[in-house]
Amino acid sequence: MPNALDQLREELVIANRILTHEGIVDAFGHVSARHPTDPGRFLISRHRAPELVEPGDLLEFTLDYKPVTPTAFRLYSEGIIHGAIYAARPDVHAVCHHHSPAVLPFCISGTELVPVYHLGAAMGPKVPFWDQQDEFGDTTLLVVKPEEGRSLARALGNNWTVLMRRHGATVAGASIRELVFRTVYGCANAEMQWKAQMQGHVSQLTSGEATMSGSHSTRPGPMERAWDFWERRLRRAGGYPADARPKTARAKDSARRKSNKTVKRSSKRS
Amino acid sequence: MPNALDQLREELVIANRILTHEGIVDAFGHVSARHPTDPGRFLISRHRAPELVEPGDLLEFTLDYKPVTPTAFRLYSEGIIHGAIYAARPDVHAVCHHHSPAVLPFCISGTELVPVYHLGAAMGPKVPFWDQQDEFGDTTLLVVKPEEGRSLARALGNNWTVLMRRHGATVAGASIRELVFRTVYGCANAEMQWKAQMQGHVSQLTSGEATMSGSHSTRPGPMERAWDFWERRLRRAGGYPADARPKTARAKDSARRKSNKTVKRSSKRS
Amino acid sequence: MPNALDQLREELVIANRILTHEGIVDAFGHVSARHPTDPGRFLISRHRAPELVEPGDLLEFTLDYKPVTPTAFRLYSEGIIHGAIYAARPDVHAVCHHHSPAVLPFCISGTELVPVYHLGAAMGPKVPFWDQQDEFGDTTLLVVKPEEGRSLARALGNNWTVLMRRHGATVAGASIRELVFRTVYGCANAEMQWKAQMQGHVSQLTSGEATMSGSHSTRPGPMERAWDFWERRLRRAGGYPADARPKTARAKDSARRKSNKTVKRSSKRS
Amino acid sequence: MPNALDQLREELVIANRILTHEGIVDAFGHVSARHPTDPGRFLISRHRAPELVEPGDLLEFTLDYKPVTPTAFRLYSEGIIHGAIYAARPDVHAVCHHHSPAVLPFCISGTELVPVYHLGAAMGPKVPFWDQQDEFGDTTLLVVKPEEGRSLARALGNNWTVLMRRHGATVAGASIRELVFRTVYGCANAEMQWKAQMQGHVSQLTSGEATMSGSHSTRPGPMERAWDFWERRLRRAGGYPADARPKTARAKDSARRKSNKTVKRSSKRS
Repeated sequence: MPNALDQLREELVIANRILTHEGIVDAFGHVSARHPTDPGRFLISRHRAPELVEPGDLLEFTLDYKPVTPTAFRLYSEGIIHGAIYAARPDVHAVCHHHSPAVLPFCISGTELVPVYHLGAAMGPKVPFWDQQDEFGDTTLLVVKPEEGRSLARALGNNWTVLMRRHGATVAGASIRELVFRTVYGCANAEMQWKAQMQGHVSQLTSGEATMSGSHSTRPGPMERAWDFWERRLRRAGGYPADARPKTARAKDSARRKSNKTVKRSSKRS
Repeated sequence: MPNALDQLREELVIANRILTHEGIVDAFGHVSARHPTDPGRFLISRHRAPELVEPGDLLEFTLDYKPVTPTAFRLYSEGIIHGAIYAARPDVHAVCHHHSPAVLPFCISGTELVPVYHLGAAMGPKVPFWDQQDEFGDTTLLVVKPEEGRSLARALGNNWTVLMRRHGATVAGASIRELVFRTVYGCANAEMQWKAQMQGHVSQLTSGEATMSGSHSTRPGPMERAWDFWERRLRRAGGYPADARPKTARAKDSARRKSNKTVKRSSKRS
Repeated sequence: MPNALDQLREELVIANRILTHEGIVDAFGHVSARHPTDPGRFLISRHRAPELVEPGDLLEFTLDYKPVTPTAFRLYSEGIIHGAIYAARPDVHAVCHHHSPAVLPFCISGTELVPVYHLGAAMGPKVPFWDQQDEFGDTTLLVVKPEEGRSLARALGNNWTVLMRRHGATVAGASIRELVFRTVYGCANAEMQWKAQMQGHVSQLTSGEATMSGSHSTRPGPMERAWDFWERRLRRAGGYPADARPKTARAKDSARRKSNKTVKRSSKRS
Repeated sequence: MPNALDQLREELVIANRILTHEGIVDAFGHVSARHPTDPGRFLISRHRAPELVEPGDLLEFTLDYKPVTPTAFRLYSEGIIHGAIYAARPDVHAVCHHHSPAVLPFCISGTELVPVYHLGAAMGPKVPFWDQQDEFGDTTLLVVKPEEGRSLARALGNNWTVLMRRHGATVAGASIRELVFRTVYGCANAEMQWKAQMQGHVSQLTSGEATMSGSHSTRPGPMERAWDFWERRLRRAGGYPADARPKTARAKDSARRKSNKTVKRSSKRS
């Protein structure tokens, strides 16, 4: 019987691969989750493309991005982004940093990203803009120092998505599935907004619509529906677990999954 | 020998998956069909991404979106869209609601969607625009109340496609195949129109051209040709029935399919 | 040993499928070739999506689009496009009619398509624009009457590509491979031109550059190199011949192919 | 045990195929590497699409693009591009020439390509623009004469990427992996810049940011991470070595690869 930590590792691996398969991270970008029982720790992969991450690659870190167990593995240079957000936001249990082609134009042009359709509101009603240059001058644009991480976390504030000038975006979620949902539909929103802007007019959601639809779509029902879809797409494309795990693990997983499905069934509409 | 209801279930599953594979629905959106012998009922999937829908997921509903048989399954929140259109339009036998990236920019910018090439006319010569805000103020933007469904059906009127502000589109068809045809080529039309608009000039079809080409391409010949193409693409990509059905069902289906092909052959040009 | 007609059938099937796989035709559009020994005939598929065309679907027609042998098959409505061009242009041995998303914006906005890079010049230095409305008023926009076909052929003149208002394009080639080359790179040129136009300036090839580079890239060397690439992509994607032919035919074909490769090797640079 | 030349051949084949799979070269374009022990020679494929290149296709040339061993194979017409750059730039060990749809709009509109995000800086802080017309008047736009190659190499100067008017781009790298990195992220930068430009404002990296982030991402850690990702994508898609090599070679390669992985592990962050 898998314990909570094993289940979280498995889910975090799938999140890494879904976000690759949906075109949001590539060789770079990373995804993390807070430890399921120790809120002072989080898990993130060693230095690998998210597409290649396997359960054994997920290492534990303290919130100041020190490995709990000494490791010889090369590590991501920007893990402090994750730690700083977990430290500032107790409600956040998963974080993704990416350079998606959907949001980059906004980071470069300085255009404000606003919710333009109901699902897009999942990125949050307000998306702040952070410019590393403001506080730190010329850098590699990577967020590597503790004070850079804290500055970014402050910019994020109580929102769910923050744009980073000429760099990318960082997204937070109350769970791994919520994080993936907010990330994918935030990027979809960016694409739609860009195309509408080209047509000369962007009518954004009213404040009420943004709050209502954002809350509605991040309930368990819609999030499960979306996760099941992304996972099916990923598996069909051979993205998981073919490359990563032995067949026996795969069979067990499939059994577990089926029993989850049965439990999940309810009569609510969503 | 499969009966009419079984055949319709099978066709509706394929429609769900074709519309996913062609990039029109994703985790969200849904496709329904009117019951083949009882016009007061329609079939739509339980709460699942269209990509995952299997024949057993298709449940029967009355036109006010009550399940004919009590069910413990979670249901789509917006099934009323379908029921309201079937109630208002006896000629409609299939409905799709989607948030395609092709039409969303039009829903956000408020640009009128007009037929710009012969196949695009299959979406209908006129595409009305519905704004939920007008009658219902701030909502989640989801169409969940009977009066919201009726309002949308009124906006659709005698047309085949209606745009929904900052939300998506709803398309109707006289059959499942016609629905899929109108949906796919309506989205293609939107993409072409957007790109032409960027070049500074959109010359739309004349009223005569729109009517003539719209009628021409929704005859059985062109619709079968398109359906066969989309189904081939879907099957090659492993989208159906690999994930959903046992091999024996697949073999039977293939046999049935072949005999259909023979029957379909005629000497007409289309 | 396959004769000239069998070889042409095989090549025409591959051309149909390459043009689908490269995103130029979809359920609609068609590709034909002049008969290898009787210039008064041409071969084109019965009414099927190009993706589904198999050698047995290719029927022979006279240049006024009458089937040489009576057939019960449904036929393409626009075959007259092909016949009219073969009648007007003895140097043309293959024709493609398509509604590619790359060229449609030009057909809708009326923007002139001009060679903007060396490979794009393969579409011809000049691409005329034909408007069916001018001579024939409101129609379905399909080219179905002999006089419509002749009008289009006149518009094509001595060029290789003609745009058709709110409809698509028709491309001619001196061989099947030349046709595919002109078609694919004409579409690539359209995409590049559109994107450059968005940036505010399109510098087209000089007349000398267009003529020189257009001739250069339609020599056998470059055309074989491109055909081999497109065919490899097609085969890897399972597009041919998996769906269409028994394994033995495939093995024979592979043997023939290998011997061709040996023959083709030369020391020329291209 | 493979020697340095065999290893380079293998890596160059993979580079050819990665650059195809990432959509940067198609039937045309080519990739070369300087000989590992003789700086006066380089290796480039015979006249084939990069997608089809196998180790045996890689021939040795002197820097004036003469084959070291006489060959009956057809050769690329533009090999002089590579030789001229190796002659002018002792620090360059790999070169790619391409016509990517990402950069072509810049070559056509004359828009300057500038670094707009940290990874994009890998193309170099400055991207010069070369116009063959300036010195050579009307040509096929192909770079085939020694003096054309030398002119292009002069335009490249000490930079890593040069745009070629209405033709494409040429990229240099200190190693094959660095070349692939600079090429892929230069194209990504072009796409991001184009989309930001459409929004009305392009804020480029400061000079300091461009230098710092360009140096940072071309260190071994990030380059390995990216290469591993692109290679995984390529292999999963069946792009290598399925078409090209016997299974035994594949197994050996896999063994070698694993031992490399172990060696590569370190505790540095990148």
